[in-house]
Amino acid sequence: MTNDSGTIPDTEPLAAATDLATALRELIELSVVTTVAAGEVRAAAELVRAASERLAVARRPVEQLSALDDQAVGHRVFNPVSGVASALAPPVRIRRDGDGVVAEATLGVAYEGPPSFVHGGMSALVMDQLLGAAAGAAGLWGMTAHLELAYRRPVPVETPLVFRASIAEHEGRRSVITGTIALAESPERILVEARGVFVQPRPEKAEAYFGSITDASGRPAPPRRPGDAAAILED
Amino acid sequence: MTNDSGTIPDTEPLAAATDLATALRELIELSVVTTVAAGEVRAAAELVRAASERLAVARRPVEQLSALDDQAVGHRVFNPVSGVASALAPPVRIRRDGDGVVAEATLGVAYEGPPSFVHGGMSALVMDQLLGAAAGAAGLWGMTAHLELAYRRPVPVETPLVFRASIAEHEGRRSVITGTIALAESPERILVEARGVFVQPRPEKAEAYFGSITDASGRPAPPRRPGDAAAILED
Repeated sequence: MTNDSGTIPDTEPLAAATDLATALRELIELSVVTTVAAGEVRAAAELVRAASERLAVARRPVEQLSALDDQAVGHRVFNPVSGVASALAPPVRIRRDGDGVVAEATLGVAYEGPPSFVHGGMSALVMDQLLGAAAGAAGLWGMTAHLELAYRRPVPVETPLVFRASIAEHEGRRSVITGTIALAESPERILVEARGVFVQPRPEKAEAYFGSITDASGRPAPPRRPGDAAAILED
Repeated sequence: MTNDSGTIPDTEPLAAATDLATALRELIELSVVTTVAAGEVRAAAELVRAASERLAVARRPVEQLSALDDQAVGHRVFNPVSGVASALAPPVRIRRDGDGVVAEATLGVAYEGPPSFVHGGMSALVMDQLLGAAAGAAGLWGMTAHLELAYRRPVPVETPLVFRASIAEHEGRRSVITGTIALAESPERILVEARGVFVQPRPEKAEAYFGSITDASGRPAPPRRPGDAAAILED
């Protein structure tokens, strides 16, 4: 893979960011399930603050995309559902599958709502991303205009899950995408159904929303796919 | 405040867990916006792994509630939206307000979907919690059966937001709750509308879902409010 200037990009910054996110995910889960004494928890907090001190030295403004984002393929590494470098993301690794997309993920106790089950809003969060990714996989994109979830059965934590989405209909700037959540071991038994309407903003709206966005070098970089719809692994 | 045995509870474990979550939230945000060199990011990851080593020594099983949860008031400290000890949570601090509930929060770049805007699924996640909290504030509870969101305008990151929810209707085990997201500085201009149907599971279902849940001492503790609906600050 080469960048615009034909040079081989330095992969270490992304590898380091991914390493930190991986370590943070483990610590976040441990912070929820640990039963060690309060003194140990305080010591862990001190280590976390020492880590923050190292990172706080320089930051990008919110209007500036990360240098790690590869806008060419629309992949955003800090996406809070699918981003390899996001500590909030499980992460859900989304792949093309037939006409749609599929992803497997296991959500830990940190994602719990009712005891032993995934928070209902977490199911909504993941499915919004899956629906948008299905739009991207079909060459469409847009921002979520409407999202609807039907919760048929509770979704257990610490259990391999499978997420699916595909295009139901589309016309002009508007796409309707449907999807499901199931256990990986019984993929036909649907736990949650999702349906989203995604709308590509008109040029004047896209300009109003994203006109000030720049890439890491400060050059204007309004997203071509504002919904981050194309954050799909090519496999 | 006293516990079942009439003794004053030790507040340090919750204070320590809250301290760790607060430190983790800052580090998660910095991990997304930092522009320091990869070597510094790797060093931060090492510190995070050292923190994990301290916490990994002892953990509770998923069926066992945290000793920090006060089941008497239904507050769950690790809830991924409202929990003071959840690093995933902004946290959204929910208060009673008239007939419903209200919360203010600012979501950082870690919660971003399209550049400079909150991920649509994050809005869904927060609103699912608000709607459930409104049910709890009205003395109702239930698990999300249906959730619907209408996205009228994008929700900016790094901007104070106000979230509201209140009961629209309820009959028997079923409640319909509606809510909104707006900017704190223009609360009448609605950015996102939400509507949820919450259903209290029948006793046999509640037993099937939560029959194996225990408190920290191993005693059966099936939640009276499975939707964590009562995680409201009394102010």
